[in-house]
This record gives sequence, C-alpha cells and structure tokens, in this order.
Amino acid sequence: MRLYTYFLPKENIETHKYYIVIDTLRATSSIATALSVGCDSITIVNNPEKAFELKGEHTLLLGERNAMKISGFDYSNSPSEILKNAAHFKNKKIILCTTNGSKSLLLANSKGITIAASLINLKAVLQYLLTRKIDDIGIICSGTDGNVSLEDVFTAGRLLSVLSKQDITYFNDESYIALNMANIPHARILQYSIHAQKLKKMGLDKDLTMCFNESLFNVVPISKMNKNEFKSKIDI
Amino acid sequence: MRLYTYFLPKENIETHKYYIVIDTLRATSSIATALSVGCDSITIVNNPEKAFELKGEHTLLLGERNAMKISGFDYSNSPSEILKNAAHFKNKKIILCTTNGSKSLLLANSKGITIAASLINLKAVLQYLLTRKIDDIGIICSGTDGNVSLEDVFTAGRLLSVLSKQDITYFNDESYIALNMANIPHARILQYSIHAQKLKKMGLDKDLTMCFNESLFNVVPISKMNKNEFKSKIDI
Repeated sequence: MRLYTYFLPKENIETHKYYIVIDTLRATSSIATALSVGCDSITIVNNPEKAFELKGEHTLLLGERNAMKISGFDYSNSPSEILKNAAHFKNKKIILCTTNGSKSLLLANSKGITIAASLINLKAVLQYLLTRKIDDIGIICSGTDGNVSLEDVFTAGRLLSVLSKQDITYFNDESYIALNMANIPHARILQYSIHAQKLKKMGLDKDLTMCFNESLFNVVPISKMNKNEFKSKIDI
Repeated sequence: MRLYTYFLPKENIETHKYYIVIDTLRATSSIATALSVGCDSITIVNNPEKAFELKGEHTLLLGERNAMKISGFDYSNSPSEILKNAAHFKNKKIILCTTNGSKSLLLANSKGITIAASLINLKAVLQYLLTRKIDDIGIICSGTDGNVSLEDVFTAGRLLSVLSKQDITYFNDESYIALNMANIPHARILQYSIHAQKLKKMGLDKDLTMCFNESLFNVVPISKMNKNEFKSKIDI
C-alpha cells in the first residue's frame, strides 16, 4: 500500500487512485453532517459568485469567509447549524464555499476519486477503504490560510494509525509525522489548535464539540474524479 | 516568547527577530562542521553560476545537486568530507550551494538575523538563544524538493523541547506538531526519513552518522540580516 500525506494542498502532489481530503474545522465535517441528515449531494465552489450562479430549485448555499456566514447564503459552514436545521436539508443539493476546504477538495477532485474525511466520519471512511482494499491513497490536509492545521494532521494521524497496519510499500515523511500524533487526547488538540482557539473565541463551541465527536456519523462522502459531486457511498 | 515553526520555506512567513534555519541532511550540518574546523565564513548561493562568480583567493566552493558534488566545485555538501579535509578549510571563505538549504537560508536572511541549526550543533544554538533571552523566533525547516522532511521537523522538535519551557505567548500548530516528535529515537528518524534512506543507498552512511551525532560541535553559525555571511558566534 502506498500512503502519502500532504499537510497542505499544493500543485505538485503525486497521482493517487484515491484522495482523502481533511478539513476537520469545518468543511469536511459539514459535508459528512449534511449527507447524514439526508441532503442529496454537495458541490464545491471556491468563490461566492460561482455559488450564486449554481443556485436553483432545491439548492442550499453553504459557506463562510473568515469563519462567518457569507452574505446571501442560506447557512454557514457549520455542522451544528446543519444538524439543528436537519429537516431543511432533506433531498437538497448543497453548494459549499469555504476558505480552505474548497481549495483542497477541488484540487483533489481534479486529480482522482475524492473522499471527504473528518473525525466525525472516521470509522466509516476507514471501513470503506479497507473493505475495498484501496492500496494507493493521498491524504490532503486543508490547513488554515496556507498554514498547517494541527487538527487536520491529527485527523490524518487517526486514519493512518489504522491504514498503516496494512502492507506498506511507500510511506512519506508527512505520513510518519501525522501517525505520531494519533494518540494525543482530543482535548489537547482543541487546546493547541490555533484555528480551534479562534472558533472558540467566536462562540462556536458547539461546532468544536461536534467536529471532535469521533465517528458520530456513518457516512462516506465521495465524488468521482472531476465530477465535483459528493454523495454518500456511491459505487466506484 | 513567540515561537513559530515552518515545515517548509515559503514566502508569506511572519517577521521575527531571529530565524533558525534547519537542513539536517545536510546543509546546516555542513555549515556547522566547516566553521568548527576553522573556516572564516560561509556565503550561500542558490545556483552554481553565482558560486563561480564569487570564487577568489582563499575561497572553496561547496555544493551538491541531487546529493552529488557539483562539477568544478571543491567539495560536496558533506560534513564527513569537510571533517576529513579539515586542514584545507582553515581560514577559507566558503561558498555553499545546495538544493534545499540555500533556498531557506537565503529566504530567512532576507527577513532577519539567521542562525544555521542542525542536530550537530543543537546545544550551542540553544545556549546562544537562552543566554540572550531571544523572545521571537521563527524556525524554518528546509524540506526536500518541496516536501516536508522528517529529520528537519525532528530537529525543530529537539530545539522546541527546550525553548517551549520559557514563557510562551504564541506557539503555532507546526511548533506543536514538531514538539511532539522530540522524543523519538534518532535511529527511527533515520529509518523513516525518505531523504536519509536515499543518502544511505548512495553510500553516504558517514554523513548520516555525523549529522545525527547530537551536539558534536559547539558552534553557532550566524549572519546579520541581508549580510549572507555566516560566522561563528558573532556579536549582534
């Protein structure tokens, strides 16, 4: 098995069969939550204008800039807000625009099959990969404004602590560093993550609690290459 | 104390009073070795042409491309080779051109006072910083061809395990991740580092052994901002 981790999205990543994109706070947690409460699909955009263009019947616009809801959007990029308004998400098409997650999700999807992973759906993603014996994985952490995010590397480590038990043929340095974080208590990650501290100061404690509730949802948001449509456990 | 770590050199780093640049395999280890055996100063260049331009009396050209000595240069970027030819380095001016270290050293020096650190001079660098109560430090890891290097993050972690015991006002996520690596045995870092494995395959075991000999040399290679002249423990 070939396992690569990338602490930040960057243009010169290797080609892999599967990409696992992580934006623990909060894009990939929001994606898992929205699919869990019954939305139909999620399409990623990297700017609000593109989201407004795609708005149609049965669509909802979700997104944030600087951790705040984008003006004119239906909801922020907030798992707890999605859960609270679950009924509103049933059978809807979601257009999602976030600061960091959009960039890494679009990059990954331009290169291969893409799964959105977070702590909230950790076990489901692992089961999906192991059951199908996926043997070439690139894990892309989204980071925060170009800086490496502790909570994303930690989530990568949690995945790697299981995946690395397979036969490994290549394991890059970033994978080794992330794996080494896997047993740190969640509370310490929340305490030291600069982005978590920022969200806490903004009063977004409910999102922090939810995003660190490991394997709360049994959902695997996945999109075919270049399709940019994340659905739950589609057959590929 | 404000402590930032950067896993790779990048343009948008913060402004700090002091930059600590790490290229454990092998640029900053070579710099510490060359100063320890009595060379006068080290100037960094990012291409061989620039090195040939600067060649004069009492200068030596040191450098590598793809871990091999550059054609027409006096020596490779090899601490064990420098130590073996110690007498030749006495009072010489060194021009150093390496693949990864040159980039991070030149970036750092364009922004502030710069210290070249590696495992080989770890204790000396720590004593320098603590004695002078330096309270704003950016640690830049050089990486390998744009990828994060395990051995550089480990060296950053070894520095941070001491520095983080001061009063900390800001500690970025990369610092926390690096700190978490500090107690891994050297042998495991050598085993998992992709770059170390490559050098081993090339028969450069002597360099690996030397570069992981922690605090072998009591030397602090330091350059004033924009001066690009690394000398031993100059007064700033």
